[in-house]
Amino acid sequence: MTIRILVTGGTFDKEYDELTGRLFFKDTHVPEMLRRGRCGLDVTVETVMMIDSLELDGPGRARIVDRVRASAESAIVITHGTDTMVQTGRALADAGLTGKTIVLTGAMVPYAFGSSDGLFNLGSALSFVQVLPPGVYVAMNGRHFPWDAVRKNTDTGSFEGL
Amino acid sequence: MTIRILVTGGTFDKEYDELTGRLFFKDTHVPEMLRRGRCGLDVTVETVMMIDSLELDGPGRARIVDRVRASAESAIVITHGTDTMVQTGRALADAGLTGKTIVLTGAMVPYAFGSSDGLFNLGSALSFVQVLPPGVYVAMNGRHFPWDAVRKNTDTGSFEGL
Amino acid sequence: MTIRILVTGGTFDKEYDELTGRLFFKDTHVPEMLRRGRCGLDVTVETVMMIDSLELDGPGRARIVDRVRASAESAIVITHGTDTMVQTGRALADAGLTGKTIVLTGAMVPYAFGSSDGLFNLGSALSFVQVLPPGVYVAMNGRHFPWDAVRKNTDTGSFEGL
Amino acid sequence: MTIRILVTGGTFDKEYDELTGRLFFKDTHVPEMLRRGRCGLDVTVETVMMIDSLELDGPGRARIVDRVRASAESAIVITHGTDTMVQTGRALADAGLTGKTIVLTGAMVPYAFGSSDGLFNLGSALSFVQVLPPGVYVAMNGRHFPWDAVRKNTDTGSFEGL
Repeated sequence: MTIRILVTGGTFDKEYDELTGRLFFKDTHVPEMLRRGRCGLDVTVETVMMIDSLELDGPGRARIVDRVRASAESAIVITHGTDTMVQTGRALADAGLTGKTIVLTGAMVPYAFGSSDGLFNLGSALSFVQVLPPGVYVAMNGRHFPWDAVRKNTDTGSFEGL
Repeated sequence: MTIRILVTGGTFDKEYDELTGRLFFKDTHVPEMLRRGRCGLDVTVETVMMIDSLELDGPGRARIVDRVRASAESAIVITHGTDTMVQTGRALADAGLTGKTIVLTGAMVPYAFGSSDGLFNLGSALSFVQVLPPGVYVAMNGRHFPWDAVRKNTDTGSFEGL
Repeated sequence: MTIRILVTGGTFDKEYDELTGRLFFKDTHVPEMLRRGRCGLDVTVETVMMIDSLELDGPGRARIVDRVRASAESAIVITHGTDTMVQTGRALADAGLTGKTIVLTGAMVPYAFGSSDGLFNLGSALSFVQVLPPGVYVAMNGRHFPWDAVRKNTDTGSFEGL
Repeated sequence: MTIRILVTGGTFDKEYDELTGRLFFKDTHVPEMLRRGRCGLDVTVETVMMIDSLELDGPGRARIVDRVRASAESAIVITHGTDTMVQTGRALADAGLTGKTIVLTGAMVPYAFGSSDGLFNLGSALSFVQVLPPGVYVAMNGRHFPWDAVRKNTDTGSFEGL
């Protein structure tokens, strides 16, 4: 089984710019995370964009949908900011992509921080995508949810079922 | 769904003893890892033993089987040294525990090291255990294998299907 | 010899707020850093403020000067944002505090990030403060400078002698 | 001022061998540590040997003394296992190397572990070597000691003055 990881940015990949003191995007950490996880899966990593998901608009979502549609793989993990994961889930579901298992995941703390949940979430998303039936899902907090049965609780930062 | 994590030690939980310069076991890191992963699952952690899996013998394996049998949960993750994961898988399979999904996982590098694969593997195992049918599995390298269709390649440190 | 560490915030102590995605201040990491360095010095840590040094104004600097003057110790390390370290150095020098060795230090990357220089700088500042004659110094990049013979190169992020 | 760092191994540079589960030496981490500390000093790193200091014998110490004597720099930091730091200090003192400030340092926990004191100690040693008068010193726990006025307390792991 081959898996495609589509990188879109999000907290996952934020880094600290030591000259400005701000968080920014450079390259994705996903390949380094796969090495650290000694990942033995047949994975292709493709960077679609590197943005904060609060800045993701309709055309941006259309690009993500296009890249999923263009993927030969039927198992697809999308790294994504947590704030608008559900909206992108809807765009993917509305696109009527049949036969693909699509798992959106992200992180509450950037991987570059010692305390990041990113590696846990990546291991989780890559596992769910191998065994869940076709559909669009969110994998966070060790759990998986259909895209239309989950919300991010902005008070706690956790994803909850509806 | 509730999950039980049975801790048996292994590389996962090894620490550095700064007085002797040797690796040893103290407490399990699993609760800390669950916090770091912002794990939202209903998980109970039970420490069965803290040993190197090369030292695990028949009576030791019988204790693990007993703890699995005694668990109310039907989804069970066992953290375990990688060297004899398959032997413990056999002991569990031989015990004829029906209706339980049991996933063995571990790490190639202790969690206390910066470069550990442990958090990735824990996220992976907790995900697989929720969706795989009853049976005994090994989850390593982002993959899952039936216990009797996997071996650890001691040259590369990776798990391979048979 | 006893040393006082006056904490004023700066990049050193910035943390990631996972609910807002912004960097912020909570508690200082200095005590944890001293434990990690197995610091055997007789050190007292006092938090004066927790702010970005770009927001430090005249009254703020006066408070720092007051705390230095009030310190019984003659060896004082001040953790401080790098952007205005020199201005605080001037305020301390202008205050005519005789008999005290005062070392300002900071970090280019928050301690909470894996790649932080903070622990290196703290080890350096605590060492310089024990052996330099009374005066006001900046310790960064493994070097020490009199406060009036140094500038931060904002293109490289390094401190340079004048 | 130019500084030479002579690397001899010790806990500082121990790594985890994920195939054998043992600690071993590969390459020194000192250059990476200098980058992380944003070290702006003019430093040359020379690896003399990579061994556990308990295995360091007379000929080994003679090689260290030779490398110090051959160094053009008058400021020298030696990274060294903590167990026999004092013996190497004696060998250096007995060699009658005049005009050089020599600082031995090490770590209680390998740099590859998240909780290592190595970066703190390296920042400390590099600072002391710039300002102490010629002589042979041990820099550990944020402190400096003349080589003949210090011992490692093997119960606590800390260095104490005599």
